[in-house]
Amino acid sequence: MRLRYKPWAKDYIAEHPEYVVSDPKQWRGKWGDRFEKEQPIHIEVGMGKGKFLVEMAQKNPTINFIGVEIQESIIVLALEKVIAEKLPNIQLLHLNGSDLKEDFEPGEVNRVYLNFSDPWPKKRHTKRRLTYKTFLETYKDILSPDGYLQLKTDNQGLFEYSLVSLSEFKATLMDVSLDLHALNDPDNVTTEYEEKFSAKGNRIYRLRATLH
Amino acid sequence: MRLRYKPWAKDYIAEHPEYVVSDPKQWRGKWGDRFEKEQPIHIEVGMGKGKFLVEMAQKNPTINFIGVEIQESIIVLALEKVIAEKLPNIQLLHLNGSDLKEDFEPGEVNRVYLNFSDPWPKKRHTKRRLTYKTFLETYKDILSPDGYLQLKTDNQGLFEYSLVSLSEFKATLMDVSLDLHALNDPDNVTTEYEEKFSAKGNRIYRLRATLH
Repeated sequence: MRLRYKPWAKDYIAEHPEYVVSDPKQWRGKWGDRFEKEQPIHIEVGMGKGKFLVEMAQKNPTINFIGVEIQESIIVLALEKVIAEKLPNIQLLHLNGSDLKEDFEPGEVNRVYLNFSDPWPKKRHTKRRLTYKTFLETYKDILSPDGYLQLKTDNQGLFEYSLVSLSEFKATLMDVSLDLHALNDPDNVTTEYEEKFSAKGNRIYRLRATLH
Repeated sequence: MRLRYKPWAKDYIAEHPEYVVSDPKQWRGKWGDRFEKEQPIHIEVGMGKGKFLVEMAQKNPTINFIGVEIQESIIVLALEKVIAEKLPNIQLLHLNGSDLKEDFEPGEVNRVYLNFSDPWPKKRHTKRRLTYKTFLETYKDILSPDGYLQLKTDNQGLFEYSLVSLSEFKATLMDVSLDLHALNDPDNVTTEYEEKFSAKGNRIYRLRATLH
């Protein structure tokens, strides 16, 4: 997702250090201290406008949620929601998903969510896809042995690629759905993008995979 | 596929020992001798009415094709086509896919095709699905190290199950298509079933996986 440049974004983020972590490395290995309670950590890499993260945090008060986003102009949209809801179990990180090893100790995270990530359809951009092997290596490093990766997308090419990439990585699929919304899973928390593209008739794909 | 019982099927098969192998164990390790030429072997497990097998044999004269089918009433439909085309590179086996280890030496086969296999949707029938681990073990045994399994189906549940089962088996996906006919692949040889259900608007799924 790319949005118009927001000149006020940097200041807005700086004004909310209680939600946007400015020095994530400092918390490496002790993320529990950063939250009201020490409890399992779920990360969303590329959180977009934050609907998924906020709803998940509301529904699951016994989990600490961390949203990771590289773009300032996007992180502020999620920040607005987080401020409005005053949730104690949510934190935002302004960084790139590939840097996560520097901010989390091995096994410190219980789940990684990828929702409607940029498909980077051109072959020369393969390395930027969030299921490229270098990213999988990062998730594997920070995920606990019983943790897993969950991916949702409506992009057929990205889903096909991710299945192959996970298989080459020797990940184990726990679950695959090729038409998630047909299942009417009451536990499925949707993203803004998911609502929009499902309404257009796009299929939503989902997989869950252990990386160890 | 289940068809009406054909009382004449047994006799018809017995009359064509040049195409239907009555004693497959005898050829174990020397299938090349059973064909006009010794060349790579591709097997279709559950060949149905034989359209795929016959067209593949016509298009690929440098490959020997073996169709495996448990039901007499089906094998005779394929046999009629094989007799009409008089192809030197096709043989039919009247047996169950799970018995293949007894009839082929390890590594003797270069490719295994599963086309629109019975999805066995009920959980208690999981072990009958042709991508259940015991079948994968059999294919792995008879496939050469550079060989692979190709699966096509329009059944979403079977495809989802197969992705998970292959992943648990630590197979490596070479290729996945979640809408094969949209690719207009000129090398895609269709089955009778594939034509019918694609015309109805069903998506056709395909995967290729190495098992070693």
